[in-house]
Amino acid sequence: MTQLEEARAGRITDEVARASRGEPVSPEEISALVAAGHAVVPANVGRPATRGVTAIGRGLKIKVNANIGTSGDVCDVTEELEKLRVAAEAGADAVMDLSTGGDLTAVREQLLDASPVTFGTVPIYTAAVRAAARGGIKKMTADDIVGSLRADAEAGVDFATVHAGVTRKVVEIAKEAKRVCGIVSRGGAFLSHWMLYHEQENPFYERYDEVLEIARQYEVVLSLGDGLRPGAIADSFDDAQVGELTVLGELARRANEAGVQVMIEGPGHVPLNEVVAQIRLAKSVTRGAPLYVLGPVVIDVAPGYDHIVGAVGGAIAAEAGADFLCYLTPAEHLRLPDVEDVRVGVIATRIAAHAADVARGIPGAAEWDREVSELRHARKWDQLCEKVMDPRAAREGRASAEPSEADTCSMCGEFCAFKILDDTSV
Amino acid sequence: MTQLEEARAGRITDEVARASRGEPVSPEEISALVAAGHAVVPANVGRPATRGVTAIGRGLKIKVNANIGTSGDVCDVTEELEKLRVAAEAGADAVMDLSTGGDLTAVREQLLDASPVTFGTVPIYTAAVRAAARGGIKKMTADDIVGSLRADAEAGVDFATVHAGVTRKVVEIAKEAKRVCGIVSRGGAFLSHWMLYHEQENPFYERYDEVLEIARQYEVVLSLGDGLRPGAIADSFDDAQVGELTVLGELARRANEAGVQVMIEGPGHVPLNEVVAQIRLAKSVTRGAPLYVLGPVVIDVAPGYDHIVGAVGGAIAAEAGADFLCYLTPAEHLRLPDVEDVRVGVIATRIAAHAADVARGIPGAAEWDREVSELRHARKWDQLCEKVMDPRAAREGRASAEPSEADTCSMCGEFCAFKILDDTSV
Repeated sequence: MTQLEEARAGRITDEVARASRGEPVSPEEISALVAAGHAVVPANVGRPATRGVTAIGRGLKIKVNANIGTSGDVCDVTEELEKLRVAAEAGADAVMDLSTGGDLTAVREQLLDASPVTFGTVPIYTAAVRAAARGGIKKMTADDIVGSLRADAEAGVDFATVHAGVTRKVVEIAKEAKRVCGIVSRGGAFLSHWMLYHEQENPFYERYDEVLEIARQYEVVLSLGDGLRPGAIADSFDDAQVGELTVLGELARRANEAGVQVMIEGPGHVPLNEVVAQIRLAKSVTRGAPLYVLGPVVIDVAPGYDHIVGAVGGAIAAEAGADFLCYLTPAEHLRLPDVEDVRVGVIATRIAAHAADVARGIPGAAEWDREVSELRHARKWDQLCEKVMDPRAAREGRASAEPSEADTCSMCGEFCAFKILDDTSV
Repeated sequence: MTQLEEARAGRITDEVARASRGEPVSPEEISALVAAGHAVVPANVGRPATRGVTAIGRGLKIKVNANIGTSGDVCDVTEELEKLRVAAEAGADAVMDLSTGGDLTAVREQLLDASPVTFGTVPIYTAAVRAAARGGIKKMTADDIVGSLRADAEAGVDFATVHAGVTRKVVEIAKEAKRVCGIVSRGGAFLSHWMLYHEQENPFYERYDEVLEIARQYEVVLSLGDGLRPGAIADSFDDAQVGELTVLGELARRANEAGVQVMIEGPGHVPLNEVVAQIRLAKSVTRGAPLYVLGPVVIDVAPGYDHIVGAVGGAIAAEAGADFLCYLTPAEHLRLPDVEDVRVGVIATRIAAHAADVARGIPGAAEWDREVSELRHARKWDQLCEKVMDPRAAREGRASAEPSEADTCSMCGEFCAFKILDDTSV
């Protein structure tokens, strides 16, 4: 039986029990959310016991994902292992290996072995990269495409992005839409390219029953990819995006019926005033499936700072109902992120997640802020620096301009508001 | 006649005409906003013609302020001049000199001479620093306090923070409130300390008519400071904050009646779910006066990243009606910012401002995003890097990991979604 079937039968699996630690609800409640399709607990049957497990969904703490992986231009497994370590250390709940450079199977195996957190992939990358080496992405076969999911499932991934909603009809809509940024999802582009060339339907869609069988067998959460996500704010809510979302709603229902856990991937580039509506639409169309958003990116003009742009959109999205935030790093739209980009990206995204946790009244969330603020008021700098989200950044920031009075900072010195009022009860 | 009186008389001043450039509305409309107290055009009568002028208020582009200035621990005028230059270059619409170290008059004079943008100060800092040198902040006299505004007005500042709402009654409320973070405004702390020690009313409040006379004479916009702003999210919307805001509403009315332009300073630390309500309350209580917010900071736990935390709060606040965003830098809560902190702080805050401009449909705002996205889609990297918010960051980010195929980036390389679909019309 799958996690979903166990949950429907009212049994608390070990994975649900583990995932409930640190959550505001009981294992029974998480199990009920899984049964209803409102939460997922990604946990491949072949995963090592050392790998952490997390629950993603309605009313739970917001989770953060970090994308790592090689590219053709920057291909060094050692560096990817370091990114994995740094992402987990900085507090990522999950990582996705998006490698497209080097020996993909070997890279994946090393990262999977080392990962202390939930692990995801986009299987079609492997199929596309191998086909490209044989002369072009169009050389993929339908078996290559579906088989890429099986290979990653066998390898032990906990969740996998499957762009099953990129149907021929949706791609036609995208062509007619004359989008400002066309298709920005790599998986969406690989599939569209293949479908247009071969004039065939998306194998993930056409052979979706087989996809579900693989997901069942290995207990892989299907993350239904948004291959048509808007890649420019001008494309937000266009017919192509909404058309794909409608397909995803139907595919989510079929997955749940087959006992397969599923989550939905969401935009993308969305202007600030549409973020809440995007989240509500996605939740409505998918009947409350867990929602995994990339950003949202609320402006297109700030490459170099898209971790900040994404934090703005992510905080609002998470307060409005998104459950899982994929990070953006300062490298987004410019280059493959390096190790420091990964660290900053995770922290920026955790800021969005925590802001939403506080806003949603998650028990324990605002208490953390209170503790930090009490230490700030008391000018207990050393304790403060240990309690904050990134202790290293706080310590280094402070050390870079040490105050002459140790209980102040170099901005205010003797004119510290707290210190001035020390002898009063304000 | 003052700007406000000219506007009421239906005349377009030179300053209003200049400030209207780049705005979505006509000089006549800005003048009408000024007449109604819904916008301000800060422009000291003694300012040099070379200094830029900007309008702040309802329906106008969101403006960004950068705080610079020396401290006792980090006191180097050359560095402050460089911060001024970098802030303006990065796109700040205004700077405030918050110096508390060195020869304050000389520092201010050099910064005022050099400033290409609207210039503000917090006059009481000067009074407090000089009194401290004479034995303690409590040595300030009421004349020192009110006189500090006159000195800055004479020196040529365009706007000045005056914490006239920190009344004895409000300070008593703050004491009783047992706030998590007491008073975090330095001006608020200086005044509270003085008022509690001397058992006297706030001179800015008691002698508010004199304050208005000074503001009239030199055409200084009064920025009514929020001395009781929440400094921890737990203190948001408490009696002390709301009590002070009520006083500020009354003082704003009196200023407008006296022909003096006024804006209101707002929080502070505010949880995500209260940001919109905070903005609406402030706008309502002050009958639509321009609102100048610091952040809002939506979580307390991320020192080192408060420019990101502030961008989240600032974007939401600006979409909800805030008009003027004071930046936060990565140094906030840790140390005096350095030059690079200033640059990053301005960009982070401009991200919030632009996101809100797009969301509010300001003409030209979303067009910028469209242009950048069209260049991205066309893979015109060099043109893209010139068009974005921080061209240097984009160029350097890209150059740090150059792709082997010049029309891609090192993340995707040959697997670039745009490139793969190049021969299709998607």
